[in-house]
Amino acid sequence: MRLFLSFVLLIPFCSVLAQQATSPAQLNLMPLPSNYQAGNGQLPIDQSFSVSLSGYKEARLDSGVRRFLENISRRTGIALTNRSATGDSGARLTIQTDHGSKPVQEPGEDESYSLEITSSGAKLNAPTPLGTLHGLQTFLQLMESTPTGFAVPVVTIHDTPRFVWRGLMIDVGRHFIPLDVIKRNLDGMEAVKLNVFHWHLSDNQGFRVESKKFPKLQEMGSDGLFYTQAEISDVIAYARDRGIRVIPEFDMPGHSTSWFVGYPDLASAPGPYQIERRWGVFDPAMDPTNDHTYNFLEQFIGEMAKLFPDHYFHIGGDEVNGKQWDANPKIQEFMKSHGLKDNAALQTYFTTRVQKIVSKHDKMMVGWDEILAPGMPKDIVIHSWRGPESLAAAAKQGYRGILSNGYYIDLMWSAARHYAVDPISGDAAKLSVEEKQRILGGEAAMWSEHVGPETIDSRIWPRTAAVAERLWSPESVRDVSSMYRRLNQISWHLDSLGLTHNTDYIPMLQRIANSEDVRPLRALADVVEPVKDYQREEFAKTPPTSFTPLNRLIDAARPESETGRIFSNLVDEFVSGGCKDAAKSSEIRSRLTAWRDVYPSLQRGMASSSLLGENENLARNLSVASGAGLSALDALDRHQAPAENWKTEQTTILQQAAKPDYTQVLLMVVPPIQKLVEYVSPGGGCSASK
Amino acid sequence: MRLFLSFVLLIPFCSVLAQQATSPAQLNLMPLPSNYQAGNGQLPIDQSFSVSLSGYKEARLDSGVRRFLENISRRTGIALTNRSATGDSGARLTIQTDHGSKPVQEPGEDESYSLEITSSGAKLNAPTPLGTLHGLQTFLQLMESTPTGFAVPVVTIHDTPRFVWRGLMIDVGRHFIPLDVIKRNLDGMEAVKLNVFHWHLSDNQGFRVESKKFPKLQEMGSDGLFYTQAEISDVIAYARDRGIRVIPEFDMPGHSTSWFVGYPDLASAPGPYQIERRWGVFDPAMDPTNDHTYNFLEQFIGEMAKLFPDHYFHIGGDEVNGKQWDANPKIQEFMKSHGLKDNAALQTYFTTRVQKIVSKHDKMMVGWDEILAPGMPKDIVIHSWRGPESLAAAAKQGYRGILSNGYYIDLMWSAARHYAVDPISGDAAKLSVEEKQRILGGEAAMWSEHVGPETIDSRIWPRTAAVAERLWSPESVRDVSSMYRRLNQISWHLDSLGLTHNTDYIPMLQRIANSEDVRPLRALADVVEPVKDYQREEFAKTPPTSFTPLNRLIDAARPESETGRIFSNLVDEFVSGGCKDAAKSSEIRSRLTAWRDVYPSLQRGMASSSLLGENENLARNLSVASGAGLSALDALDRHQAPAENWKTEQTTILQQAAKPDYTQVLLMVVPPIQKLVEYVSPGGGCSASK
Repeated sequence: MRLFLSFVLLIPFCSVLAQQATSPAQLNLMPLPSNYQAGNGQLPIDQSFSVSLSGYKEARLDSGVRRFLENISRRTGIALTNRSATGDSGARLTIQTDHGSKPVQEPGEDESYSLEITSSGAKLNAPTPLGTLHGLQTFLQLMESTPTGFAVPVVTIHDTPRFVWRGLMIDVGRHFIPLDVIKRNLDGMEAVKLNVFHWHLSDNQGFRVESKKFPKLQEMGSDGLFYTQAEISDVIAYARDRGIRVIPEFDMPGHSTSWFVGYPDLASAPGPYQIERRWGVFDPAMDPTNDHTYNFLEQFIGEMAKLFPDHYFHIGGDEVNGKQWDANPKIQEFMKSHGLKDNAALQTYFTTRVQKIVSKHDKMMVGWDEILAPGMPKDIVIHSWRGPESLAAAAKQGYRGILSNGYYIDLMWSAARHYAVDPISGDAAKLSVEEKQRILGGEAAMWSEHVGPETIDSRIWPRTAAVAERLWSPESVRDVSSMYRRLNQISWHLDSLGLTHNTDYIPMLQRIANSEDVRPLRALADVVEPVKDYQREEFAKTPPTSFTPLNRLIDAARPESETGRIFSNLVDEFVSGGCKDAAKSSEIRSRLTAWRDVYPSLQRGMASSSLLGENENLARNLSVASGAGLSALDALDRHQAPAENWKTEQTTILQQAAKPDYTQVLLMVVPPIQKLVEYVSPGGGCSASK
Repeated sequence: MRLFLSFVLLIPFCSVLAQQATSPAQLNLMPLPSNYQAGNGQLPIDQSFSVSLSGYKEARLDSGVRRFLENISRRTGIALTNRSATGDSGARLTIQTDHGSKPVQEPGEDESYSLEITSSGAKLNAPTPLGTLHGLQTFLQLMESTPTGFAVPVVTIHDTPRFVWRGLMIDVGRHFIPLDVIKRNLDGMEAVKLNVFHWHLSDNQGFRVESKKFPKLQEMGSDGLFYTQAEISDVIAYARDRGIRVIPEFDMPGHSTSWFVGYPDLASAPGPYQIERRWGVFDPAMDPTNDHTYNFLEQFIGEMAKLFPDHYFHIGGDEVNGKQWDANPKIQEFMKSHGLKDNAALQTYFTTRVQKIVSKHDKMMVGWDEILAPGMPKDIVIHSWRGPESLAAAAKQGYRGILSNGYYIDLMWSAARHYAVDPISGDAAKLSVEEKQRILGGEAAMWSEHVGPETIDSRIWPRTAAVAERLWSPESVRDVSSMYRRLNQISWHLDSLGLTHNTDYIPMLQRIANSEDVRPLRALADVVEPVKDYQREEFAKTPPTSFTPLNRLIDAARPESETGRIFSNLVDEFVSGGCKDAAKSSEIRSRLTAWRDVYPSLQRGMASSSLLGENENLARNLSVASGAGLSALDALDRHQAPAENWKTEQTTILQQAAKPDYTQVLLMVVPPIQKLVEYVSPGGGCSASK
């Protein structure tokens, strides 16, 4: 129960080192290594700590060690960056790298490493720099504060990933995400051993890359918010330094309105076009029947293929509604004359031609489920937003695939729900060994309709670390409570890399509250979650656009309410124990009382800040629901018989409180309160079952 | 009293907008404008907010407006950066700049501006971009959250600075300060209208600039921690964009051990030399009798004069102890043969020759007090670490001067103490008008023996804003309580620029506590201040060096304890009112009770974290002192007669608690507790005077 109190009542939300001595079951690592054995004792980390590199040498290893020492310095306050990183024979951490990795990183390269820590020193050995970089991250996660100073525990680790493709997709089309935000997220990816940054660079709402051949793409399609080619190259180098591939996506033939602002003749209907400001699936699509389209793409893909060295090139291919095609007589005529019986066939015609262009520029094409059609060459990769079944079907046909269905982190699911999704499950679990190997891994997908630079980190982290563990660690690693314990640790660790998922929370609440003192608002924010899936638009007062401010409670609220989760567990334990545990009852009561009082505490401030004021109904609902919970608790543990109709009335109240309104958030403590109500026996006390 | 509670008990420490509606006396501006008149009403700032520029155009104005909009976006959560910054006829803020400023900024250029805000729009007019940039900062400080959304109040401002030289010196020699930290501090300087960044680039402990002519300076004298010439130029451009001049200082002939590591033949005694790791005044000094020294400086200063475009060049010149000169027979012989009667005369000989070199490269020399000597040309500038008297004497002789005595922010003085220091005071106040004009202004001086990248912001900010107000605002602006109220506002505003003086506090305490929950440690940290002046070394367990970690309570503690100041005011009001105010008594009691209980709350953690454990005695002292305060309070307001010798005993206890130990911090609540004890009458109750 201490845990519950410490998270609900206290002032945390900044980086912190591990709080407990390490036991074998409690290694603070995420993802968990494939093989490890904890020992006794620790290796101190103090001013004399140093690192040596031997074996294969390259600049990436030097900069990796420099960043490693900087992170230790930041977390300990001990300056280490003026220590030489090479050739010190008395180094505490000796690193041996056997040989180089490929000049352009490829899926399937050896990423393994071994790390042996004793009380006198540590050895990190890896076949390639990729393994070395992973091992350094493991070491950083192990560091903790102890009674005698900072240290890492004695442990032996042999580690290698389960999947070769472990990605994070960031959509910068819908909301532009500045370079510094991209970079800090690459730091986060490195920390959890993700190795693919999938950059969704164009969509209806923005074209985000400088093209020198077709400058109107960025000049007219981006509001001035795009990356120069030099910046792109800088990010690619930054990612490579961290063992991360960068895969560009240019979505076509749909999701491409922003291209048409500067180049309307690419579209299937006459222009002019404007940058799209709304969200959804729209009509504009490239004209697949016009040779001009392919000439343009030939040159454009050629330019981008040079800019992005990775061997894979993502062409999107999703969600073409076909309306422009249906309405264009020339296109209809073309379909007839070429025997293309429907729009799917027309898109396959398009994809086939684009694949040839991509291939000509020495890239392997990646695309969403829609690109899979008979006759496609086997070296393409299917990126599944539809699910493991679709992936399994592709694998059976000989295609490689990666999974994003179940990893859409914009949908505000819990970490546990994402964690349960396995690329090799359902139909895929029944595949042959060879077929299974075609399932390369997966990608967390951060679609950006409702995130900006201030909020994107809190949507990506820490939940993406759970996806990273699913993709790296053995399939058998599935303990959800262990995952949450370690997720909490990694979350604070990520703060030290400059990620803002924790540090922006209080400032955002202060902005809403218009006050330094955010205690009552925080009590409210701690128990809400944004609505799930695509409900944010459904409950919006006015349809959101790319100009809608992202400064409201829903934006500050975390995708997953830790307080709600812990309270829900507490109620489960209480009722399953027959409502007899006095300590649990007292804790539930204290929480409910605090929540009941949030609304009166907030009322004064609501009159002075418009951002706070809109949450009045929500705060009142929390108060009313908590009151219902308190009356249930009285009935349960003081055996007070409820009035007739009490349960029906409370249920009505709670159902009302559970419904999201225009604030677009859910009160996560209402379902456990409902459970308390359900467990009340007609004469008072706890019913054995609801 | 609400104020007291809100700062002592709550969870602040992040950026926040102004909390109150603005009244004329409460404009949240620092520095206060020279002339302003507040009106009624406000101008809303919402998604439609836009800016237009007219008159003189240059890239600096565009980027100034872009940063202005970015800051509004960051603070409101409303994206504005995709709005065009030019030519919008319906813009809410129209800016007119009359003409350009000088290509290399000079002291005395017109920095004035006028800003007129009505409920329908705002006009910013300025003769030069310098004024425009200042006006934008004023606008940003005025923005607040209101019941109807974000807004700026209606106001008319005509503003111009009192002094032309308003500086911040940062010593990067003793601890290297990375570029990003320099840049965020330049942002802070811009926010409070400082216009000189004085960069102390070399000292015994490090030479921080790349020299292409003499590469061993940085290669052997910096531990690899130096700025490349490209980085220097980048900082200069960054500063110019913010209306800030950059003045380099290369300290000579003393404070120069780091030069001698690579070039021992510059010194007055044979080498080899090593980078100095200790703090203090050391023997090594350049050989002023050797032509080789001047040949070297001729080339070096020539190179640096090109790198740093400012017309002024700081050569330091302070603290030569002369020991190497005394011990070198050749130097003694030279002095005799040239009629140089003592080391001061020898240094003047050196300075005279260096001044000619500096002048040859079209720079005006700046140096500390020591450089002033008969025969120096009148265009040099005296930088006074000795005080206004020295400045006045120089002004009488026709020399221009700037003041840093009283603005040494490394000495951990209160903002009020720095605020009281006026460059034109004491002897300087008696100067003629013409002589007074030679006093150009002043510089806050951030010496870096005991700061690093993590802690430097909290030593500079917010106190430097009080110095900035002294240098910008009319002499008559002296109200300390208004200063503290506005200092608090500007402190949160500076958070939005990425300064870390507030945001690093809790993470540093969490590191010490080894816990997310820092409540008891924070209660302790909130009431301590680092020891003053140069006592940190005096009370250190072992002499500190450049390798000493800066991760202890003294490093997390703020230079000025707001809690201590507020408690002290509370006690003053309580006793001066005859100890009759029950609310005040109750508040004092509640504070003392909380402090008494800090020690027991910390004890468990002390066993598990070495950084926390060393504060045991300090925490016990707080507990004991608070107990003494509680017994005094009982005597004062419950009229309980104290035991015989009680006052003597308590005084002994409190004197003990007031003494700093190896933690090097002061318990700021002990003196007000001592005051409570002193006011106790022998028979109980409150004596009229102590």
